[in-house]
Amino acid sequence: MRRGFYIGRFQPYHMGHHLVLEQISREVDEIIVGIGTAQISHTVTDPFTAGERIAMIYGALRELGRWFYIIPLPDINRNAVWVSHVKSMTPPFEVVYSNNPLVVELFMEAGMEVRRPPMYRREVYSGTVIRRLMIEGGDWRQLVPDAVAKVIDEIKGVERLRNISKKDFA
Amino acid sequence: MRRGFYIGRFQPYHMGHHLVLEQISREVDEIIVGIGTAQISHTVTDPFTAGERIAMIYGALRELGRWFYIIPLPDINRNAVWVSHVKSMTPPFEVVYSNNPLVVELFMEAGMEVRRPPMYRREVYSGTVIRRLMIEGGDWRQLVPDAVAKVIDEIKGVERLRNISKKDFA
Amino acid sequence: MRRGFYIGRFQPYHMGHHLVLEQISREVDEIIVGIGTAQISHTVTDPFTAGERIAMIYGALRELGRWFYIIPLPDINRNAVWVSHVKSMTPPFEVVYSNNPLVVELFMEAGMEVRRPPMYRREVYSGTVIRRLMIEGGDWRQLVPDAVAKVIDEIKGVERLRNISKKDFA
Amino acid sequence: MRRGFYIGRFQPYHMGHHLVLEQISREVDEIIVGIGTAQISHTVTDPFTAGERIAMIYGALRELGRWFYIIPLPDINRNAVWVSHVKSMTPPFEVVYSNNPLVVELFMEAGMEVRRPPMYRREVYSGTVIRRLMIEGGDWRQLVPDAVAKVIDEIKGVERLRNISKKDFA
Amino acid sequence: MRRGFYIGRFQPYHMGHHLVLEQISREVDEIIVGIGTAQISHTVTDPFTAGERIAMIYGALRELGRWFYIIPLPDINRNAVWVSHVKSMTPPFEVVYSNNPLVVELFMEAGMEVRRPPMYRREVYSGTVIRRLMIEGGDWRQLVPDAVAKVIDEIKGVERLRNISKKDFA
Amino acid sequence: MRRGFYIGRFQPYHMGHHLVLEQISREVDEIIVGIGTAQISHTVTDPFTAGERIAMIYGALRELGRWFYIIPLPDINRNAVWVSHVKSMTPPFEVVYSNNPLVVELFMEAGMEVRRPPMYRREVYSGTVIRRLMIEGGDWRQLVPDAVAKVIDEIKGVERLRNISKKDFA
Repeated sequence: MRRGFYIGRFQPYHMGHHLVLEQISREVDEIIVGIGTAQISHTVTDPFTAGERIAMIYGALRELGRWFYIIPLPDINRNAVWVSHVKSMTPPFEVVYSNNPLVVELFMEAGMEVRRPPMYRREVYSGTVIRRLMIEGGDWRQLVPDAVAKVIDEIKGVERLRNISKKDFA
Repeated sequence: MRRGFYIGRFQPYHMGHHLVLEQISREVDEIIVGIGTAQISHTVTDPFTAGERIAMIYGALRELGRWFYIIPLPDINRNAVWVSHVKSMTPPFEVVYSNNPLVVELFMEAGMEVRRPPMYRREVYSGTVIRRLMIEGGDWRQLVPDAVAKVIDEIKGVERLRNISKKDFA
Repeated sequence: MRRGFYIGRFQPYHMGHHLVLEQISREVDEIIVGIGTAQISHTVTDPFTAGERIAMIYGALRELGRWFYIIPLPDINRNAVWVSHVKSMTPPFEVVYSNNPLVVELFMEAGMEVRRPPMYRREVYSGTVIRRLMIEGGDWRQLVPDAVAKVIDEIKGVERLRNISKKDFA
Repeated sequence: MRRGFYIGRFQPYHMGHHLVLEQISREVDEIIVGIGTAQISHTVTDPFTAGERIAMIYGALRELGRWFYIIPLPDINRNAVWVSHVKSMTPPFEVVYSNNPLVVELFMEAGMEVRRPPMYRREVYSGTVIRRLMIEGGDWRQLVPDAVAKVIDEIKGVERLRNISKKDFA
Repeated sequence: MRRGFYIGRFQPYHMGHHLVLEQISREVDEIIVGIGTAQISHTVTDPFTAGERIAMIYGALRELGRWFYIIPLPDINRNAVWVSHVKSMTPPFEVVYSNNPLVVELFMEAGMEVRRPPMYRREVYSGTVIRRLMIEGGDWRQLVPDAVAKVIDEIKGVERLRNISKKDFA
Repeated sequence: MRRGFYIGRFQPYHMGHHLVLEQISREVDEIIVGIGTAQISHTVTDPFTAGERIAMIYGALRELGRWFYIIPLPDINRNAVWVSHVKSMTPPFEVVYSNNPLVVELFMEAGMEVRRPPMYRREVYSGTVIRRLMIEGGDWRQLVPDAVAKVIDEIKGVERLRNISKKDFA
């Protein structure tokens, strides 16, 4: 049995993440999805809570009919203990999937196998692009799985993001 | 759609928990299992990491063929914000299942519906009893689902518990 | 102008505290009341939130027609920086009133003047006694100022304390 | 009885805040003034400690002859629990006064009534403007209540701000 | 080059520690002394600050004419990341010396070599015994190196310990 | 006996620091070197752990044949208690050496003597310059003591810094 670990902030979970997970699911038996910066929400770059992100990812993955672990990971703000932190919050895994240079370096220093997943249509499958479309009224729905759009609608996520991105005159 | 929330420390997950979850699963559509005191491990009362507890519960629930959310919840050490903390880390839920007086009080003050699940064979389906059996070499395996015993064996959990429960002469 | 500093947990604020503050108010121009362990609530020894304790003390002192500073002080869990912590959260003061050995030692080491206030009817003007009376249905109202009893009633404080002091069978 | 909650960083408290509080005091019975980011001081944007800010505001409000609650609120760095955090540190309140988009959003999501107070002479009644005048030797005194200027002088606040705004050649 | 790691709370550093370090110094080239629970002081079980403990140990070891690393280690309160925490605060080391069951278990799980140092006159070379002698006026000086007694006298350590061990009547 | 306190982040320790310490060592009997921001590593501005920085400084100072205290100081993120924090982690000292405006201000407000050490060849004896040379493949070795270069090589510090400074396309 072989488990892979994939981490992201998922603000929100989009088709780029989804295509990577489909790819990874062909290489390992089980996938652990770590939700990074889990403690932050209601900011312009991190609008959604960990619970909301779990609901998004869970909905998208359930459609695939596969078992996944979806685990919120609060920041620990000490890179030197971060790998231990992740390991203590997850079932054992053998391979890490990441393109983030810091994540790659930390797991490599810890002696783990790290693979770089392919990146799909990076110019639109991007949290930054999607959040900007949400604020400006563009078409973000086509960039995320349907189950994700459904969650964002239920929590009034676009309204929240627009409100908190207003200028503060205080 | 109706979700129920059930929280415990699960040190370890045992048949008492399992029977409650089977009961709850007949009352709601989806169950969120919160792993309390997620940040603590390697102590006599809390020997297992959150990741190890996730593996135990996941194994036991997968055998049931049902979807569950299993979410580690680190202590926040401020009861007055604890309900908000839980809500931010979980998908929305409508009913709480707990017999813990503090959990009941906090969710009641927050205006949530709280139900008391039945408790099964409390004299043996008990984390305290099971950990003592582990230390003393008793038969703890019959008190937990098979998938849980398998995880505890893989991580050498009994050996760990015995080691850390030795007297400190320092 | 001369300010005095008086600290307590005030779980709840009672006539013993009140008599001390009346005494202190004859010695200094302004009194700063520090609410210790401000972050804790909903426990058997610390049932009330900082906000609830502020409301209690404020009500009791307003009846006296005097100006007071009432300042919540979260624990910092590092005694060596605690005096700096207190000073950073309060207007400047010249004298400390306390009978707590640790508070006395920390302010003495910091070179501050410390006075021991008289203690009144210690066998009943005591948070421990009052909380026990609340749980057991005894007459706690005569031991606190009227304004305090009013706040405790409004927040259903006795019911909360009784609920959280129930035995946990989980 | 109706209480209003007004929050700011008050670095320093100025006439813009003061005019808002005068306005609010006509709408509610009691005002709770929350001092945000209470734990930070000695920086270019947040030069004053919570205790110093309490002294400033207290002095200004006492001149009005009204009762106010002035409560330091340390950051909790988790927006999703911030409203609970505020509520646990304050007496109960019914209406929030704020123009800060995040504060507005968080209290709105919590189902509270939020009002936008008028803003007065925003181009000069501004902490940023006042701190710049302090550094550059301009006339900041006319922009704050007399009691505030007195506190700033006593703590040598302008000297502190100038010192810490020097370039670091280290 | 081979480094050994030895950890204790050193409240205070006594002849038992000293004899162990002399023993260890014959087995490795360099010794790293970790001061555990570095953030705590002014309590009955942990009266001395990390800085005071560094001064004690430094004085005792300098008399030996050997190079040592003396490193304060604040508690991190998460056993699962503790080894990473220690490693990030220390130069690389190859062998751990400890009789503490938890320390032994954590380093063993991390795959490190752990040795049990001999324990000398455990009935008197004991922090608990020495602190009790300090409180009761017994002869503690013969149980610590001279340099340690000198530091304790300079900081008035015995007076502090007696003061904070008084009963709290508050 | 007179001790001086010198603080820096030492990312990495370089000849500028070394020349200052040589200068200070002529003015005081013992030097305490505080390693600031000790908890941070593996970032572009703070690549090295506290333990790695201790090894660097220790190696450089041992060549001088002098006794030094080298003490990691985690950030406390509350300037108003920072001086107390430093004092609790260090042996007593009488004079502070710093050119950092905030450090100077905080120790001055605490009534300590502060001296400004001379700065040597600031245009190259600079952590920023040295880290940029490391990334770009320039000659950084001549700017640090030999013992420091040796440690950086052993931990593959340049490779780490280059890896984590790559652009994140995630």
